[in-house]
Amino acid sequence: MIRTHDAGGLRAADAGTTVTLAGWVARRRDHGGVIFVDLRDGSGVVQVVFREEDAHALRNEFCVKVTGEVTRRPEGNENPELPTGDVEVTATGLEVLSEAAPLPLPVDDQVEAGDDVRLRYRYLDLRRGGPANAMRLRSRANQLARKVLHERDFLEIETPTLTRSTPEGARDFLVPVRLQPGSWYALPQSPQLFKQLLMVGGMERYYQIARCYRDEDFRADRQPEFTQLDIEMSFVTEDDVIDLGEAIVAELWRDLAGHEISRPIPRITWHDAMARYGSDKPDLRYGVELTELTDYLRGTGFRVFAGAIDAGGYVGAVVMPGGAAQTRKELDGWQDWAKARGAKGLAYVVLDAETGEPRGPVAKNLSAEHLAGLADAVGAKPGDAVFFAAGTNTREAQELLGAARVEIAKRAKLVDESAWAFCWVVDAPMFERTDEGGWTAVHHPFTSPNSEWVDRFEQAPDRALAYAYDIVCNGNEIGGGSIRIHRGDVQRRVFDLLGITPEEAQDKFGFLLEAFKYGPPPHGGIAFGWDRVCMLLAGADSIREVIAFPKTRGGFDPLTGAPTPITAQQRTEAGIDAKPKAPAAAHTGTAGPAAPVADPT
Amino acid sequence: MIRTHDAGGLRAADAGTTVTLAGWVARRRDHGGVIFVDLRDGSGVVQVVFREEDAHALRNEFCVKVTGEVTRRPEGNENPELPTGDVEVTATGLEVLSEAAPLPLPVDDQVEAGDDVRLRYRYLDLRRGGPANAMRLRSRANQLARKVLHERDFLEIETPTLTRSTPEGARDFLVPVRLQPGSWYALPQSPQLFKQLLMVGGMERYYQIARCYRDEDFRADRQPEFTQLDIEMSFVTEDDVIDLGEAIVAELWRDLAGHEISRPIPRITWHDAMARYGSDKPDLRYGVELTELTDYLRGTGFRVFAGAIDAGGYVGAVVMPGGAAQTRKELDGWQDWAKARGAKGLAYVVLDAETGEPRGPVAKNLSAEHLAGLADAVGAKPGDAVFFAAGTNTREAQELLGAARVEIAKRAKLVDESAWAFCWVVDAPMFERTDEGGWTAVHHPFTSPNSEWVDRFEQAPDRALAYAYDIVCNGNEIGGGSIRIHRGDVQRRVFDLLGITPEEAQDKFGFLLEAFKYGPPPHGGIAFGWDRVCMLLAGADSIREVIAFPKTRGGFDPLTGAPTPITAQQRTEAGIDAKPKAPAAAHTGTAGPAAPVADPT
Repeated sequence: MIRTHDAGGLRAADAGTTVTLAGWVARRRDHGGVIFVDLRDGSGVVQVVFREEDAHALRNEFCVKVTGEVTRRPEGNENPELPTGDVEVTATGLEVLSEAAPLPLPVDDQVEAGDDVRLRYRYLDLRRGGPANAMRLRSRANQLARKVLHERDFLEIETPTLTRSTPEGARDFLVPVRLQPGSWYALPQSPQLFKQLLMVGGMERYYQIARCYRDEDFRADRQPEFTQLDIEMSFVTEDDVIDLGEAIVAELWRDLAGHEISRPIPRITWHDAMARYGSDKPDLRYGVELTELTDYLRGTGFRVFAGAIDAGGYVGAVVMPGGAAQTRKELDGWQDWAKARGAKGLAYVVLDAETGEPRGPVAKNLSAEHLAGLADAVGAKPGDAVFFAAGTNTREAQELLGAARVEIAKRAKLVDESAWAFCWVVDAPMFERTDEGGWTAVHHPFTSPNSEWVDRFEQAPDRALAYAYDIVCNGNEIGGGSIRIHRGDVQRRVFDLLGITPEEAQDKFGFLLEAFKYGPPPHGGIAFGWDRVCMLLAGADSIREVIAFPKTRGGFDPLTGAPTPITAQQRTEAGIDAKPKAPAAAHTGTAGPAAPVADPT
Repeated sequence: MIRTHDAGGLRAADAGTTVTLAGWVARRRDHGGVIFVDLRDGSGVVQVVFREEDAHALRNEFCVKVTGEVTRRPEGNENPELPTGDVEVTATGLEVLSEAAPLPLPVDDQVEAGDDVRLRYRYLDLRRGGPANAMRLRSRANQLARKVLHERDFLEIETPTLTRSTPEGARDFLVPVRLQPGSWYALPQSPQLFKQLLMVGGMERYYQIARCYRDEDFRADRQPEFTQLDIEMSFVTEDDVIDLGEAIVAELWRDLAGHEISRPIPRITWHDAMARYGSDKPDLRYGVELTELTDYLRGTGFRVFAGAIDAGGYVGAVVMPGGAAQTRKELDGWQDWAKARGAKGLAYVVLDAETGEPRGPVAKNLSAEHLAGLADAVGAKPGDAVFFAAGTNTREAQELLGAARVEIAKRAKLVDESAWAFCWVVDAPMFERTDEGGWTAVHHPFTSPNSEWVDRFEQAPDRALAYAYDIVCNGNEIGGGSIRIHRGDVQRRVFDLLGITPEEAQDKFGFLLEAFKYGPPPHGGIAFGWDRVCMLLAGADSIREVIAFPKTRGGFDPLTGAPTPITAQQRTEAGIDAKPKAPAAAHTGTAGPAAPVADPT
């Protein structure tokens, strides 16, 4: 090593030691004949004192090697905010290892910088305290999760990333194959199919911190490549997977957030979560629950509510504590907020802070009786505001109230930013209606119906429940999974309901269905959105903060300039424009029946 | 868990316990009214005894749940070869979790099966002992390497896999970018550039078990995606990286091969390795060193040797102990062997086992004096054979002898298959001649010349040495790395010598060169070919054996059928045929000078 000591590790006990340090000039202060330099390396910062001329040439972010003696700082000059603040290094030697040009991005935790310049000069950004610590935290999170998993005999297994396109869900990224011109690999959206094959292969306990790829239109905070902590287990029930998931998050939050998660983490059914919080990822750091008013308001003359109720829909409300004190402008702002979400508006009633009397545009439309009982029905007090949503589509109305709930908590400052609130959302629905009137799988088509529905999900697909579970932290879904179907008959019935013909199933998942002919074990798993888990632990507000080299919207990398046009030669060589040959029989994914060998039993 | 106990964990002490097991029927034997089933799960195998009819339906690889009582086997019926061989489970309950169709691949360690059927039914193959153990070994290898690295404060950092095409070396796999039609990502051949950027970013100690991609013509045992244990460190010398590399392999071999590697691992210079072993990855499990005869044979009348010597080339020999006993057919076989390698043949002399008299076609062409001293010159004894190579290209001639050396060891059974022989090959050359008469980098253009050459490599590029090192195990290169150039002036001189113009450098590596303007630290690293390391530890003869879902030659996956043709819709959506827009200035990788902010010093 070029250095003998870490700069950040020097203490009063090291006084008198001659040390060689190597790092960067974090700050230079010229005091007449004496120059003070804050020298930064991976371990921290120490003050170096130069009495020689040559330190005049130093500029911020020069990379230097310094030899000197550790001395106690003169009394009164200690810096209690710095772990090394009792000492300084009196330099006797200086070597500039490399110089730094004027900086496009100051390496200073106090300076705000735009995302574009930060990402373009990410190597300077990473020298700052916050970004560097985010990288350290993520490395540690990996280590902690692996510890939990290895203690439980999980195997880390890598699955392919050059694989077969699966025409489900989001779009695949595609890769032309030069050696088979006209054929393409797809980058996997998750290791789902491979981890299920590993279970068929008897691996029993698998995990992988896996890179996944989704070619989606970029919503806020999406990356074309992202990372999952991916887990699958055989011979388990939902409780086993949930227990493991809790062990992992408990270990992470204990070590990295100093927070002891109270276990078991509460479970709430998907339907309860929607009814009480208007969300399948409820933020439980605050109350502000929804109240359904469909029955209470039955018979109302208010057309908006009556229409929803008569059509078998939903009317509900959520209370904003103290919301009656909002100005007219603030109340109008809620209408804009609702419209921005695609709703027509947000009906409301405010309760007079003194008298509790209901006022506002909706109040005029409700009967005296409905108004009289309203505060009790929704649990509101004088001075509160009551927001309503109504619709024939229950879920949409609940989600509008759920979003209002989140916004209320924000505006009324009900969120304890230091709190951690976890829950499992369980008993998710198996199916939802497609726009065409058919059914689609809420999770994926390999998700198992629960024991109550497995024999009769066709009777009421809209009510059938799955062994599917999500783990939610402060309103963020951080992981989710399910018990998978391992019985061929059940899988066929699910495909039938989804309108997937045997031929389609064979074409899309033929190799998985083939595998399931050979004694597949009951199995299930979970995948954590690892970027988001690390983001929450780091207290960051974007997953970009916990990714070493993230991309901006549209998948652009300001540092390398990727993606780029390719040359005509690359295009030709890669076989991008080649016509595919008709595949040989053995080269289809739909592995047909092979000649069975004699069963030796 | 569906089971209460692991099948493989049951022992005599468990007798009397009622257990529920879950696993696969490994073997069924019908003894009249009693049926014996070997039940296999991830932990091993136990014998289950059924006295009920329903076990008749069981076939191999049915997945079952069995309840029963652990009993000691009747005296004399113990199976000492099985860890559970003292007990059996007397079944009282049986549930078939799933059935198995007749097997295309018997789940039997004793049955040989072709690669195609094994990979197509990899999930059955993985139920066999060998393949399952290879997966376990690899998982453990990851864990051991990480332990060594975390103990030394390394950070695990993920680098992007959707990145910029670098037109160096092997071909990149390309990925069309739908959101920027006409632009493409490349899959990285290694994290090289990103790990160097992390060093510029002050991360100091980085590692990653990284997926890498190379679109190469498939030679034996290549995969389009492969895995590296990738490491980079700042403020280090070559010795520091070598020391870390040794710590990793020592830990791996101690734990997984029961072998204590004697440290320090011997180092041999690249030139010595070529001179003594004719290889830059010498197998040191045996001797059989090469002898250079250029000086000894100077003045010979034998045209083949004289031509090489006069042209400033090389003549050398390698001895096959006992090789004189080979038949004429065997000796002729060496000529075919040499021709298959692209050589004209392999000149030889055999030394009579009794008299030591040199015989054979070459003997006729050498002078009596040269023949008389030959045995001493090459260290041969009566009964040995001496193989020669001569050429104007020293390296080619040495490599022919090096390959003959490996073949000699094999044919003469000189290889101790239980031995582990490690070495570092250091002081590699910086440059080699291109066919066009220019120079190319032997490693990559960021490799640092060593201190002896850094100021004058232009004076003798063919002799200039790099801080580059490979680690070799039993003749396999298992890792390699270098100290990188961190000085802009040295990098420019290397580019100049390689004929890379500033414009080309800017276009190819602009973002790295830009980063190197801002105080880059001295740094270096190493990457282990993780598939090969695991292959050696597993005692396997192909990296496919330690990859969960490997591809065959040509990059085909017999299991999923990947790659496949894509649909016209996929093609359109992915923007494969879009013309790239002229890139905006900010969207080039050649990050130009940005407006510097005020240097706050």
